[in-house]
Amino acid sequence: MNNKRVGRRTVALSHPPSVISFANIGGKQEKEGPLGKFFDETGDDSFFGEKTWEKAESAMQKKALQRALDKARLKPKDLDYIFAGDLLNQCIGSSFGLREFNIPFYGLYGACSTMGESLSLAALLIDGGYARRCAAMTSSHFCTAERQYRMPVPYGSQRPPTAQWTATAAGCTILDAEGKGPYITHVTCGKIVDRGITDGNNMGAAMAPAAYDTLAAFFRDTETTPADYDLVITGDLGELGHAIVRDFFEKDGVTLGDNFLDCGLLLYNREKQDMHAGASGCGCSASVLNGYLLGGMLEGKWKRILFAPTGALLSPTSSFQGESIPGICHAVCISTTK
Amino acid sequence: MNNKRVGRRTVALSHPPSVISFANIGGKQEKEGPLGKFFDETGDDSFFGEKTWEKAESAMQKKALQRALDKARLKPKDLDYIFAGDLLNQCIGSSFGLREFNIPFYGLYGACSTMGESLSLAALLIDGGYARRCAAMTSSHFCTAERQYRMPVPYGSQRPPTAQWTATAAGCTILDAEGKGPYITHVTCGKIVDRGITDGNNMGAAMAPAAYDTLAAFFRDTETTPADYDLVITGDLGELGHAIVRDFFEKDGVTLGDNFLDCGLLLYNREKQDMHAGASGCGCSASVLNGYLLGGMLEGKWKRILFAPTGALLSPTSSFQGESIPGICHAVCISTTK
Repeated sequence: MNNKRVGRRTVALSHPPSVISFANIGGKQEKEGPLGKFFDETGDDSFFGEKTWEKAESAMQKKALQRALDKARLKPKDLDYIFAGDLLNQCIGSSFGLREFNIPFYGLYGACSTMGESLSLAALLIDGGYARRCAAMTSSHFCTAERQYRMPVPYGSQRPPTAQWTATAAGCTILDAEGKGPYITHVTCGKIVDRGITDGNNMGAAMAPAAYDTLAAFFRDTETTPADYDLVITGDLGELGHAIVRDFFEKDGVTLGDNFLDCGLLLYNREKQDMHAGASGCGCSASVLNGYLLGGMLEGKWKRILFAPTGALLSPTSSFQGESIPGICHAVCISTTK
Repeated sequence: MNNKRVGRRTVALSHPPSVISFANIGGKQEKEGPLGKFFDETGDDSFFGEKTWEKAESAMQKKALQRALDKARLKPKDLDYIFAGDLLNQCIGSSFGLREFNIPFYGLYGACSTMGESLSLAALLIDGGYARRCAAMTSSHFCTAERQYRMPVPYGSQRPPTAQWTATAAGCTILDAEGKGPYITHVTCGKIVDRGITDGNNMGAAMAPAAYDTLAAFFRDTETTPADYDLVITGDLGELGHAIVRDFFEKDGVTLGDNFLDCGLLLYNREKQDMHAGASGCGCSASVLNGYLLGGMLEGKWKRILFAPTGALLSPTSSFQGESIPGICHAVCISTTK
């Protein structure tokens, strides 16, 4: 057996696949935030020309994939697989958004870790020689998520300070066996971690232990430290969850410095836009990666990024039945050199 | 690039992973059906010792994995990855059922095709040398599915003749890089196929075009015909969907003979048990595979099976919004020789 693992949980890719294209779509809040100029397209209302918010979310995925294909001058038939999922019940954002493309499809459910999970599996299948080109993508929408997980937006429910704001956004990365980078060099698969947090308005705390678990495994397996990366960036832990991960590492004697960021703390202007503990949703890390981060790597701003989005694997039903909130985190190392 | 594909969509595995263990769990109807004796464990009520049906579904996944591990004398730490998903919103059957095992987890959403999708990805990652052992699994539960997709069971809604009965069942396969078989030799990834069917009580018709699409791609890619397999078996097309696939092939001049079966037509006694068009749900094909089918292969009953479960990628929300029902089908070829 040709075991390509380093350590227990991390795979070091022998033929690191290259990012050859990426695209992101956002809503009005995302446009008005500090990363607004890093979006390929933003919509001024939340419907993207559709009649319902769910159809709008599908439209965002469709636009994100089409733009990523266009930027690489590719046709849908040039892709071997799409890996995608979203937060909606039965992942309808992905299945309805992508049905017209006629591309072999592996549907995922990783909640807000989906951008990490989809990139991981796409990279593994390309590295293994099973595919030449794959798309990895996901989306979220504030209005679909509120109505599904909490309350319909028109009810005007009040949100506690620990609550996060689900991004209305989608992101798509196209990976290729050949290319000029950035490259996916390592992937670490997450475990389901549940430390008993039950507050659905404090997802950051629920997901922080999963982020710590995966990041610690990654550093252990690769024998590196946070200082070896230009950025170590989680998906949507928000203010509280992000601080908890920093604390966990501090207890191990590992200092996460200024290069430890969270997509959820970058997407909105924390002072001018009232988003409480930060952004969340699959679309948060997906849109920050497929614009600001990958764009910055191409411009030479960062050489090596450890991208580690987290997901909360709850449903309203599980919470109604008194269950706590399990989390998961999938980490992907992206580098400008192989 | 080391392209391991045959044809456009099928991967021929260079080092076919071996099934080293499998287990299935069922409810009362499954026990009373013609395949009752092929279950490892059946529950006489629908709660499996839990207080809610959703927790019962998680309990079934937990039992299925534990039994599969026990039969192979393995511990959870002996598995590199689990690939799992289910029909419940946010796939809580899997995340809550599997959280205690502490095994790296890739969550999937493939609706009732999940057993095919999970086996495919597990086989690819083992074949590629990224893992030694993986579990592939899924579940469904009649009462959780009815309340989520249609009406709560206590309402006593009437079901039309085309409706199928969601199996209360779970199944788990453990694949290993080494073993005595049966082996996973080929996998074909499905595409999202939508032919405009909108009747949520006629899933078989909605999924049939996807089954035809994937099976036709598989036969074309491998240059084989249905007669080359001891069984060509779909997941839960039921009576109507199964007949439609037969018709589609007939139009191409290909006759699917008596070896073309459907797990949904095997699980219950169609005369004595009133299940209308047949069984459905992720747990239907998962439990038939991980008992009757794999057991039969070990006994020499069949040498080569093409297992092709289908999924309907709808949600109640998509149907309320007037959407049609997209389907998908993932095919896996299982053989007693490499």
